[in-house]
Parts: sequence; structure tokens; C-alpha cells
Amino acid sequence: MTGVTVILCPEGATAAAEVRGTATGTRQFDSLVQPHHLASKAHAVVLAGGSGFGLSAADPVVARLESEGYGFDTGRGVVPLVPTAILFDLAFGDQTARPGAPLVEEALATATDGRVACGSVGAGTGATVGKANGLECAMKGGVGFASLALPGGPTVAAAVAVNAFGDVRDPDEGRLVAGCRLTPESMELADARRVMASQTPAVEHPWEGNTTLAVVMTDASISKLGARKVCEMAFGGLYRSLAPALSLYDGDLVVTLATGRVEAHIHQVGILAEEAVARAIVRAVREADGFGILPAVCDLSS
Amino acid sequence: MTGVTVILCPEGATAAAEVRGTATGTRQFDSLVQPHHLASKAHAVVLAGGSGFGLSAADPVVARLESEGYGFDTGRGVVPLVPTAILFDLAFGDQTARPGAPLVEEALATATDGRVACGSVGAGTGATVGKANGLECAMKGGVGFASLALPGGPTVAAAVAVNAFGDVRDPDEGRLVAGCRLTPESMELADARRVMASQTPAVEHPWEGNTTLAVVMTDASISKLGARKVCEMAFGGLYRSLAPALSLYDGDLVVTLATGRVEAHIHQVGILAEEAVARAIVRAVREADGFGILPAVCDLSS
Repeated sequence: MTGVTVILCPEGATAAAEVRGTATGTRQFDSLVQPHHLASKAHAVVLAGGSGFGLSAADPVVARLESEGYGFDTGRGVVPLVPTAILFDLAFGDQTARPGAPLVEEALATATDGRVACGSVGAGTGATVGKANGLECAMKGGVGFASLALPGGPTVAAAVAVNAFGDVRDPDEGRLVAGCRLTPESMELADARRVMASQTPAVEHPWEGNTTLAVVMTDASISKLGARKVCEMAFGGLYRSLAPALSLYDGDLVVTLATGRVEAHIHQVGILAEEAVARAIVRAVREADGFGILPAVCDLSS
Repeated sequence: MTGVTVILCPEGATAAAEVRGTATGTRQFDSLVQPHHLASKAHAVVLAGGSGFGLSAADPVVARLESEGYGFDTGRGVVPLVPTAILFDLAFGDQTARPGAPLVEEALATATDGRVACGSVGAGTGATVGKANGLECAMKGGVGFASLALPGGPTVAAAVAVNAFGDVRDPDEGRLVAGCRLTPESMELADARRVMASQTPAVEHPWEGNTTLAVVMTDASISKLGARKVCEMAFGGLYRSLAPALSLYDGDLVVTLATGRVEAHIHQVGILAEEAVARAIVRAVREADGFGILPAVCDLSS
């Protein structure tokens, strides 16, 4: 009930991040969040379950890239830059499950530039959403993917691991798709925003640990500062598809990777990034499997 | 065609801000953006037109507060903390118009805890929205206000000066309310997100200068870190009511002021803040007056 999602860009992609949440856990994000940092590229991004323990999931990726000669050339060999972000899934299934080396090796072995699996896979295996009434009233989260392309312009995709405290809503219609239920037995959504607005300071939330981790990937040619701006615009996808985003217990962040193959305006990338992130979040819960532990969207409609 | 909006909290309100845009102009935001800064309160907030020149609009407010004995007690007299943020309106009407001392004195003289005027008043006098096709295809922006209260809980209000590059949309229905028009003569909206997605790198935007400045005001008792968290949640109001928020040319920011009179959960304040900001943005353009220079929402419906 945990896992890892690996995004490979071994030749290096211009990388930036905006880390805004209040419960993040990251590794090697230094160059992504500091505009003046020497390094401007990343060679892979790892999203992992396992909370803080998941930060070790980067190790096999770093080793693989090094063995293949990919990384930042230091003049004393290459040092791969593999920014890694984790989410808390220890409360779903066996709390001793960790995304260790075998899981990461499997992710590397099955890596593809083709169709991407969504739902309760990879970093989304143990992810949950809608925890305003506690984990027992939550629903299954997951990993979502969406890709948009402009004719003659850039392609912009988003991979999002959705482990939000809040609910997931359709960004266009505003209707809730998945989220906190009224009671552990109920299949009726309580509306997290309503629940949270009614909770006085006396209400104590058992700390569940939540986060939505979004990675925007594009073939556009943009600078590191441009990639950072795309992160800002892409945050709109979180706000539109999560109700709410960025609660006290959410560690939300956005990473942008740009391979620089297609000329594009930053606004083209930013507009598509927001939309891709918004769609990927909805897809993550629509394709989730609750493994008999928690209901998923597919259980609501059946 | 410029103006100033003054928010007075002379006894001091716990204050924090999140400055995320890429075209901001501020004064005395140091303590609001740094959690470890010595000062934790503000005694007024000033929103002003006039671009960088508008930063002097704080002077009469500082003088008034000092003369009345309000401010941070340094042991050598009081120093009022008056964070000030400006917007660019020099391209609307006379570009030499500045929000000078007479305008600020008028704002102070007419300050009220009663009904607040919205539309093309105060800092919103020269504000515009929807500039993806250039200023000549824009519509009138303004200042909006919305207040929400929970029975037995906190009241949360938002004052927002809306001078966005993007369009304004209804946050619930997704329908565009005001924004960039197809041509200078047209009254038909072009959809800024569509326009921006089609603009290649060769498209040069004349720099218009844009920003949406949001101030959240609450009677809730929350810490400075809590107020900062409210800023993060309130940014959802910008993303939901602006399409898009945070373009390359937007200097968007959120300030939160808390007077500490009512016990409240940070989530209560954050949920209401997002909603108040979203509603205030729509109200700003719905009540705007184009002064015969640009169309306003009221001209679309007539």
C-alpha cells in the first residue's frame, strides 16, 4: 500500500519548483526553488509514498543515472539531480510498508514514454483524499496524468499524486467528485469546505499528513525563471480541482520540467499547465481503487 | 483616474502577506512576508493607484496614526506600520494623475466601518481587466468588497483591487464576467486563456502593468503564522475568479489582517477568505464604471 513514481529526463530538463504547503517533505529541491542556484536542470523527479522514509527512493534512480553517465558534470564525474517529494500514506494499509529499492527498480524497469497508468499506482498507491472528518471517512486518492498539446506549439503534461486533506471537485462544473464522507459507513459526501467552516478551534485533527504533488512536463523552450512562473500558474489547477487546496495539513508543491525542444510563450505553457494539473487531479481519483480499505469513486457510482 | 483605498486598524492587527506575482510594488511589507520578523502587526493597509509613485500614499496615513499615538512602540515614540501596495493605472486617463496627499486625506476623512463602495473608486478608480489583446480591448476593473460571517464564529471580509491581465469569471459557474474583448470596438469577450494559449513567443505584449491586490480582514484570533496560512488559502479566490491569475505581467498578492477578538480555527478563516476574495473580485467588475474610456460590465448588459 505504498509506491513510487519516477519521471525520467536523463539528458536534463530545465527545472523549477514552488513549494507552498505546510507539510512538505523534499530532497534536492535546492536548485529548483532558488532562482540564482547554480544548477538549472534536473535529470529525474521522484514522487514517493512512505512519508520521510520515501526520500530514500531517489537512491536507485541516482545510481542508475550515474551508471549511464547522466547528471550534472562536475569535472569529477556526473552528479544526477533527482528532486524527490514524498507523501504520507503510512495510515493506509501496513504502516511499515516503504517504497524501497525493489519498488523503485520496478518503476525504472517499466518506465515508458507511452501510456501512463493512473489511479492507485505508483506514488498514489496509498494516497487518500477528503480527510476533514478523519481518515475513516476519507476516500481513495491516487496518481493522475493529463496531457494537452497546441497544434504547432508545445505539449504540456501533468502528473499529480493526490493525497489531499480536502475534497476533489470537477474544475469546470464545481461538483464534488470524491472527498470526505458524512460517516465511516456513508457513501454521501459531506463537503469538506462546509465541514471545515464549522470546525471550532476545539476540533483537533488527528494528524494524517496530506499533500498534492504536481509535476508539469513540457517540451517547451523556457528558462528556469519561466519554469518557475509556470509553477505559479499551474497552482491554479490545485485550487480549482481541490476544495480546498493548501489546508493546514497539506504540503502542496508544483515542479515544472522543460526539455526545451519547442519554441513557446511562457503563457502558452502556463495556461495549459493549469488545465493539465486540474484534469490530472480529477483523473487520479476517478481511476482509483480502494483495495477494500476505503471507498473510491468507482464504488460511489456502482 | 487614480485613487487610494485605506484600511485602518489603528490598534494593530496581526498581519501577514504572501507576495507571489511578478510585477508587485510594495512598501513596508518586510514584517508581513517574514515569519521571524520582529513586528507582527499592522496599523493600516494602503492600496493605491499611480504605480511606483503611489507608494507615497502611505505618508499621510503614517502621519495621522502617529499624531493619534498609534503604532509600534519603540520606546522613542510610536512607528506606525502601514504596508502599502500599488497598481499600475497610468495608462488609463491622465498619466500624470497620482494618488497624492489630498486624495489620501479624503480617504481618511470618509473612512467608515459601515457600507463600503465598490467599483471604480479608491485604488480601483483606474483599474482595468482583460488585457491579453492589449489595453484597447480591455474592460474596466475596480475595487470589490465581500464579507462572510459564521454564526457564533468569525467574520471574514475581503477588499480586492482588481487590475488583472486576465479575465474575471464567475467562480461557481465558470462563465466569464468581464475581460479582454475581440477588438477595440467589439463587446464580445475573446477569452483570455484562449488568446494566451494561441500567442507564440513572437507576440510582444506592450507592458501594461497589472496586479490584483487582496486584503483579507477578520476578527478571528489567529497568529501571524496562521494569518500567513490564510493568505495561501485565500489565493484560491484569485485563481477561481481570474482566468488566469498570476500571468507574467501580474503582481498578485494577498494580505491578511486579524484583530483577534473571536476564537476561530484557521481553517474557518481560510475557507471564508477564499470565498470572500472570489466574490469581491466579481463584485469589483460588476460595479465598475468605464468613465466613457473603456466598457464596463454594466455596458455589456445594456
